[in-house]
Amino acid sequence: MTEFELIARYFQRRSPSALVGNGDDCAVIAPTPGHAFAVTTDTLIEGRHFLPTLLPEKLGRRAVHVNLSDLAAMGAQPRFALLSLTLPAIDEGWVAAFSRGLWSALNEFSVELVGGNTTRGALSVSLTAFGEVAPGRALLRSGARSGHDLWVSGPLGDAGWALTALLQDRDGAGQIAVTATTEQIERYESPTARVGLGLDLRGVASSCIDISDGLLSEAGHLATASGVGMDIYLSAIPTGVAQVRYDDVADAAGKLSAHAITTDVHAACRALLAQRCVLHTGDAYELLFTAAPRHRATIEGLFSKHALAGARIGVVTSARPGANVCVLDARGRPLDIEATGWDHFAEVP
Amino acid sequence: MTEFELIARYFQRRSPSALVGNGDDCAVIAPTPGHAFAVTTDTLIEGRHFLPTLLPEKLGRRAVHVNLSDLAAMGAQPRFALLSLTLPAIDEGWVAAFSRGLWSALNEFSVELVGGNTTRGALSVSLTAFGEVAPGRALLRSGARSGHDLWVSGPLGDAGWALTALLQDRDGAGQIAVTATTEQIERYESPTARVGLGLDLRGVASSCIDISDGLLSEAGHLATASGVGMDIYLSAIPTGVAQVRYDDVADAAGKLSAHAITTDVHAACRALLAQRCVLHTGDAYELLFTAAPRHRATIEGLFSKHALAGARIGVVTSARPGANVCVLDARGRPLDIEATGWDHFAEVP
Repeated sequence: MTEFELIARYFQRRSPSALVGNGDDCAVIAPTPGHAFAVTTDTLIEGRHFLPTLLPEKLGRRAVHVNLSDLAAMGAQPRFALLSLTLPAIDEGWVAAFSRGLWSALNEFSVELVGGNTTRGALSVSLTAFGEVAPGRALLRSGARSGHDLWVSGPLGDAGWALTALLQDRDGAGQIAVTATTEQIERYESPTARVGLGLDLRGVASSCIDISDGLLSEAGHLATASGVGMDIYLSAIPTGVAQVRYDDVADAAGKLSAHAITTDVHAACRALLAQRCVLHTGDAYELLFTAAPRHRATIEGLFSKHALAGARIGVVTSARPGANVCVLDARGRPLDIEATGWDHFAEVP
Repeated sequence: MTEFELIARYFQRRSPSALVGNGDDCAVIAPTPGHAFAVTTDTLIEGRHFLPTLLPEKLGRRAVHVNLSDLAAMGAQPRFALLSLTLPAIDEGWVAAFSRGLWSALNEFSVELVGGNTTRGALSVSLTAFGEVAPGRALLRSGARSGHDLWVSGPLGDAGWALTALLQDRDGAGQIAVTATTEQIERYESPTARVGLGLDLRGVASSCIDISDGLLSEAGHLATASGVGMDIYLSAIPTGVAQVRYDDVADAAGKLSAHAITTDVHAACRALLAQRCVLHTGDAYELLFTAAPRHRATIEGLFSKHALAGARIGVVTSARPGANVCVLDARGRPLDIEATGWDHFAEVP
């Protein structure tokens, strides 16, 4: 099977909304009059953004959702995509499964794949996504104001916990044995872009970002872009299922603050790991956004409408010297936590 | 240096035409009213699309031009780009040189880099380019009609010849020692997108494609998309500089047709290699287009205006059974040449 046959069989479909679709030098596409395109590109590399054990169907789905998550964070309606696929070789079974996952996710949002390229090399998937938004209605990072609430669209921590467990399955457990539930692994491998919520937050949220790197890192981006500070209430963060429970996290915070990790080292380490998953690890793909307090009932209603376990987790403050994001424990005391996110060039700890 | 610092220092610049520029979840961009975006994405992988010896500054330039070449083939005005850069590690000197080449090429065409991502892995550069075109004016592959002329915007063969020479420098010469001139190597490493010509061909060319893979492969795409056949006159193809001379090519054709490679095997092999470079090898990034004969003087004028050594190399015929592209030697006899292009999954011969 040649490159052209591969593309024709698995990736070329009619794109009814494109002015020129798949199969010319370029696709030609235009937003609906009065709208603009929100555009974003994300690359998924084997061994860095996903484990080699990830099923190809899930990889196809994931490539779509991590890009649509950026569109969701702008309040944009997904419309088109371009795909750059780098494969070590043509394994038709693999490509068929990958394309099933890809198309299933694209079709869910009526996104048309209008072009791309395939080549040979280390496995990597790069998608460019085009959403549509009226320019003045786009959700930016820069609109947070002192006194606004800080919200997250769903529980955090599961993805980091699942990744830790999967790495232990592969490499053997360290000091703390971590096991993840099927649901946690599913949340890590197959995140869901909060597209519907993003669209409904237009005119409601004052700033928005998606949590691809980690809560504190993303909150820092909102704070920097808006020129504000943020207080996050640790006990208000929804923390997913099973092992990553609030009391673990709160406990870790207490023990960390008190420098009192003495009695049960194992439990304390687990709790610290849980805290790290909630605050620092990425791959959650929930929306983090701010809104004026008058929108609280509206936002709770949107969480219900979209069946999301979102929560109000903090408040926007005026800008302040030093760290612009502060995490407070249940008693309102600031924790000494570095607001670092995922740096692709830093060593994995 | 972190990923965010790297992006900020080398890749974030103001994008005055974007509604939302670099630094949010998405860029927000819109074409000029009455226009649409022509969009394309191309990936350059070390060892497959460029040699590890390619200087980073040239790689940056090349990533821009190979993508703009697709815009040129649509008659689109380049406007914006997104960059996905995968690096084995942060080497600031390398990144600085790469970004110099990238920005130099972007600035030449007033293209604004509005976003992208960096990650760690095997060296790879993926660019998505956005051009602007009035939908009805885009140059498509599908408009060639019987009786139209077939044109190429410049000489072919240099890139393939240079690549052969560079591979021999690395691996040692085979039966035929190939050396390339500085000019040939420059044409291979630093192709130039024919953006100005593409814009001027709107309303003139009936179909257009850029030669990224190889002449016969691209001619086949035009023929298939247009539902026509094509006759290409071997002796009319402009064939670059130095070693790749017309007489070599014509000679090869004659010898191939006559099955008479007996007297000077070395010269015959060189000539066959030259022919292969002209007809089959890619990386030329010239435009291949068709136009009605009434536009001949206009097209000659455009070649002069843009200082291009283009030529009329064939004619469009009606569709016919079998191969839709036929190469004719100086006496009008069809050559037995397979119309294959570059297949990324086929073994390099």
